Amino acid sequence: MTPFSQRPELTHQGVLKMLRAAVARAEKMDQPQCIVIVDASGVPLGEIRMTGSKYLSRASARAKARTAASIGAPSASVPEAVRAQIGLATDGDVTGLPGGLPITVDGQVVGGIGVGSGTGDQDIEVAKAALAAIGLN
Amino acid sequence: MTPFSQRPELTHQGVLKMLRAAVARAEKMDQPQCIVIVDASGVPLGEIRMTGSKYLSRASARAKARTAASIGAPSASVPEAVRAQIGLATDGDVTGLPGGLPITVDGQVVGGIGVGSGTGDQDIEVAKAALAAIGLN
Amino acid sequence: MTPFSQRPELTHQGVLKMLRAAVARAEKMDQPQCIVIVDASGVPLGEIRMTGSKYLSRASARAKARTAASIGAPSASVPEAVRAQIGLATDGDVTGLPGGLPITVDGQVVGGIGVGSGTGDQDIEVAKAALAAIGLN
Amino acid sequence: MTPFSQRPELTHQGVLKMLRAAVARAEKMDQPQCIVIVDASGVPLGEIRMTGSKYLSRASARAKARTAASIGAPSASVPEAVRAQIGLATDGDVTGLPGGLPITVDGQVVGGIGVGSGTGDQDIEVAKAALAAIGLN
Repeated sequence: MTPFSQRPELTHQGVLKMLRAAVARAEKMDQPQCIVIVDASGVPLGEIRMTGSKYLSRASARAKARTAASIGAPSASVPEAVRAQIGLATDGDVTGLPGGLPITVDGQVVGGIGVGSGTGDQDIEVAKAALAAIGLN
Repeated sequence: MTPFSQRPELTHQGVLKMLRAAVARAEKMDQPQCIVIVDASGVPLGEIRMTGSKYLSRASARAKARTAASIGAPSASVPEAVRAQIGLATDGDVTGLPGGLPITVDGQVVGGIGVGSGTGDQDIEVAKAALAAIGLN
Repeated sequence: MTPFSQRPELTHQGVLKMLRAAVARAEKMDQPQCIVIVDASGVPLGEIRMTGSKYLSRASARAKARTAASIGAPSASVPEAVRAQIGLATDGDVTGLPGGLPITVDGQVVGGIGVGSGTGDQDIEVAKAALAAIGLN
Repeated sequence: MTPFSQRPELTHQGVLKMLRAAVARAEKMDQPQCIVIVDASGVPLGEIRMTGSKYLSRASARAKARTAASIGAPSASVPEAVRAQIGLATDGDVTGLPGGLPITVDGQVVGGIGVGSGTGDQDIEVAKAALAAIGLN
């Protein structure tokens, strides 16, 4: 293994596209949402807290985004049996709540998106709309 | 004083417009920025960390936005003589760094915007571009 | 009891050996890991976050190492029945997640190692490889 | 600007090489050091706290590494006049202390290294030895 490798990175134009698409979908379903997008190290790249959303969902949306980016899979895939233990050991960062999806390009995780304030299904639908806006699914 | 009053509120569509205008201005000046917008209570409404910006400027941009929204004036107007003391007493939340502007509608503060990664003048220019995008100056 | 006593201490050369052996084992099993080594007071001595590991496992690996060093036994030995209570009371520091092992010399605990990102069995195997590298088991 | 771009990344083998070279140089100068390496988002990739080093230098080494990776320049290049203000606004993350160097490949910042416990000159010398070990200067 060499000291360096290459990896794709999500640009801010990609982030803006994702946020706008997520907001549009949330407006269409009439469910205001908190939306957080993080990079491959879990550091926030962008965020919107929609008018009428639950402000505490900022925190859960952040955890969902960070979980999905960390594990490279939907936050809801964290096994039921270990959720409490891992949630405690990571100060709430790892969550099994639905609404977090990884952002994966050419098989490499470049970040994650987390959505919160609606039902689990609504959160996932909004996250998927954001991914679709940058050509991912 | 009656138990309730009315106040204007910044909507997420306003926030998206501000973020897009801020990014456009930052791109034009070729200086990637961190941009944070908070509500009248200092809680984040939206954020973008541009590709190539300094990630630690997220924190200073947030402090600038919170300072401006709290005092209803530019962050740089915090008097030189008290900056260290107030900064310490508020855990860094009050800052005199330039780049934070209040968002004021009909004489009422509805929030603040903070910009960081460039020079003080660049940060202020980007914040002003965001205000202009929603008809403020 | 006299005011002072002697205790063995893990040197940084020991820590480097452990980290290299842990990484080698993780590479061999093709499962990138986060590895954290703490001293007898639970303060970090060394850490590696391998390329492709889950970044949130840094936190759980740290908790595993600190738990093992504190109790002088594997983290997984924390009784099932008290895990939630003790995890809450210690802000997530005590965890029953497998992958934390004490570092014990001549019957005295000198620290702990925590490994996370794989299955519990993989985490333990990597931690054991690190102990073996400094002549412990 | 497309939604994605490519950037180099520091691998864990690169991190191990840097840590070993830093430790070797610190041993040679007989000054134990705390050494922290972070990625391009400021998240730790590796760390060693040498036997006999100041344990509180872990925090300053971390700040030095995070500052250098954030600004893409040595931590000591933070202008004297703004150090206190920016340090406060970033909760101590931005520091002007010498001993933090960016890790830059092909003109792109992939992370930072921070060293602390010695004099400023010693800290910088150790950081440079780490960079040299992966072919950088």
